[in-house]
Amino acid sequence: MNTPSALFVDLYELTMAQVYYERGMTLEAVFELTVRRLPEQWDYLVAAGLDRALEFLESLRFSDDDLAYLSTFAQFDSTLLEQLRTFRFSGDVWAPPEGTIVYPHEPLLQVIAPLPEAQIVETALLNQIAFPTLVASKSARTVDAAAGRPVIEFGGRRAHGAEAAIEAARATYIGGFEATSSVEAGRRYGIPVIGTMAHSFILAEGDETVAFDAFVSRYPGTTLLVDTFDTATGLERAIQVASQHGPNSVGAIRIDSGDFLEESRAARAQLDRAGLTDVRIVISGGLDEYQITALVGAGAPVDVFACGTNIVAPPDAATLDSAYKLVEYDGRPVSKLSAGKASIGARKQVWRAADHDLICRFGDAPLADANPLLVPMMESGIRTVHGRDSLQRNRERARSGRRPRSIVTAASLLD
Amino acid sequence: MNTPSALFVDLYELTMAQVYYERGMTLEAVFELTVRRLPEQWDYLVAAGLDRALEFLESLRFSDDDLAYLSTFAQFDSTLLEQLRTFRFSGDVWAPPEGTIVYPHEPLLQVIAPLPEAQIVETALLNQIAFPTLVASKSARTVDAAAGRPVIEFGGRRAHGAEAAIEAARATYIGGFEATSSVEAGRRYGIPVIGTMAHSFILAEGDETVAFDAFVSRYPGTTLLVDTFDTATGLERAIQVASQHGPNSVGAIRIDSGDFLEESRAARAQLDRAGLTDVRIVISGGLDEYQITALVGAGAPVDVFACGTNIVAPPDAATLDSAYKLVEYDGRPVSKLSAGKASIGARKQVWRAADHDLICRFGDAPLADANPLLVPMMESGIRTVHGRDSLQRNRERARSGRRPRSIVTAASLLD
Repeated sequence: MNTPSALFVDLYELTMAQVYYERGMTLEAVFELTVRRLPEQWDYLVAAGLDRALEFLESLRFSDDDLAYLSTFAQFDSTLLEQLRTFRFSGDVWAPPEGTIVYPHEPLLQVIAPLPEAQIVETALLNQIAFPTLVASKSARTVDAAAGRPVIEFGGRRAHGAEAAIEAARATYIGGFEATSSVEAGRRYGIPVIGTMAHSFILAEGDETVAFDAFVSRYPGTTLLVDTFDTATGLERAIQVASQHGPNSVGAIRIDSGDFLEESRAARAQLDRAGLTDVRIVISGGLDEYQITALVGAGAPVDVFACGTNIVAPPDAATLDSAYKLVEYDGRPVSKLSAGKASIGARKQVWRAADHDLICRFGDAPLADANPLLVPMMESGIRTVHGRDSLQRNRERARSGRRPRSIVTAASLLD
Repeated sequence: MNTPSALFVDLYELTMAQVYYERGMTLEAVFELTVRRLPEQWDYLVAAGLDRALEFLESLRFSDDDLAYLSTFAQFDSTLLEQLRTFRFSGDVWAPPEGTIVYPHEPLLQVIAPLPEAQIVETALLNQIAFPTLVASKSARTVDAAAGRPVIEFGGRRAHGAEAAIEAARATYIGGFEATSSVEAGRRYGIPVIGTMAHSFILAEGDETVAFDAFVSRYPGTTLLVDTFDTATGLERAIQVASQHGPNSVGAIRIDSGDFLEESRAARAQLDRAGLTDVRIVISGGLDEYQITALVGAGAPVDVFACGTNIVAPPDAATLDSAYKLVEYDGRPVSKLSAGKASIGARKQVWRAADHDLICRFGDAPLADANPLLVPMMESGIRTVHGRDSLQRNRERARSGRRPRSIVTAASLLD
């Protein structure tokens, strides 16, 4: 596991912390991490990233190397460095469990800790929560679009670095994808790993039929990639090889280019004519929920959708508009009024009823027949049992409630 | 440094490798990594990411843990696992140096190695090159838009994970940014680190004037964030504190919300009226080259642009359309013909002349008065002197040639 280093902070968190320590501003602060608005056309978010965020908080220590580097900054003196030398995150964290469906302004994370502690973790927490939530949400939308057909993840090469690729694979799994092509994601998170051949295999062999034959001999039931030269010809060769090797020798064919509706229809007809009605059709190449909705709507005979680029780095939502805001200090609600970015002071709880969510002050009387969205994940720097949920349970949780909801802000917050 | 693990592969690279080893398909292959097209409105790319990619190739080893995990896959047998146990990348790499201005179809990386070696590194190389190139290019565009005013990077919280944040900071520095807020990026790459205060500091203190006074006392010459409650009032308080503390006590004010043209004009006038003509104006909040072009064009009195979200995760280019394609095997040029994704076979060189680039076959006679874009970065798995360039030199290199060019494909490639 690669948790961010303690120096994964924006410098201002440390310049502020130094003044907090020097002025004794070390009382309890409450920060909330929220998304301010949904990307266009999106109806919900799937919370993700909490496990890594909690791991970061648990393991956060400033090493001698970290402190040596900080001592090169003219603005830091030994008071700050001594505080950091023994720094531990000692606070509480409340959050909805991963896989929970959430909406704008509902806290994805609530940090209750001495002010410098809660401040220093700002960048890391935003960074560790927003991206997995983005990808889990995009994935859930894509799974919804696929209407029951499996969706698998091929995006590692296009993610923003290797860590992003692996965390994206985990997030797609929470969002309902069935498998990933990333071996490291499989090892780290136990996600099913899939993959067979690229165009390069066929190009290196030179002869498409020989290449298919070699692959089917080695991997009975494999998926053959048929569009290296010409899809209809490639498919004919795949059919020939499947016929020679007998039933179940070819599990599926994959098409990675062209007009997917046309190509999948032609391929299905060609396979069926050859009696290969069990051979499935996988498509890949720039797919997302919009294209899949169109293909499913048009009745494209696609059995598996392989998605990459547009899920792990969504073009319609490069990031989530997330914020980590101080809402209470020493029991006093605080809020900023900046144009277009105003925040509501006071620590919050969200009550989820059958037909709506109520965002209210923490400590307000519970809403009848409703469940609290935020639960304690960490107490005094130690994870609770809720803070150690399994990936499978997170994935299960994301399966229901993926729809718009009415979100009501309690009068107690608007005073 | 966190290089990707050896398991940062897509599974198909290993299923193919197993067949390559078993069938003796281990002759020399040439793969090229290219970008197929520019994002809309973009004129050029700034090559970046090579140093990390070479480091990955140099250090790539399959550990016992890696092999133990792979042995759980039914499709892998001991032949493959033994090959991986002693796996070293033994090939050559040619590439344009980081910071070079490049165009679609010009190789960003050329790998010449035994086929399984060149195949296994596919995902990692695409992943390590495409994202830094994306961000360095976006940054250069932003620096161009700023027309000489410094641009600084605040995007760590919105990047796709911590590694993405740090690599993005490095890429923005290559693209011409002056500094980053990321302390880890400063440590790892020696990039200047900047940062002062967030809204939370003012909210926790409660009184904006007291907060400013505390900060200026501790950090003379600092930047005060003035839009927590109301920008004009915040600025008035900043002016009051600056007047009490005397010349140079406040270096700059930062505005993080509102209409930046209006706000910067109002702030400049207010500062000038108070005689604080030396106090600079920093703006931040969703900036990119498009907004900066508009602000500069309108004469906004902004001294420093702080950019984050839209640079480290560009909404107009969530990824680059990159590909890593086999172009030669055993001396034989190969090319795929897939609809919309056709590749040109044969190893290439690019000659850069004063007024155009010529993409030709490797080994073609050099173009007169032109320089080769691709130079040897790694030979037999060891970096050359070119493969160890400094970040400063990469940054210098990116400063010139940022414009559209005519790209010509030699007749020898089109036969």
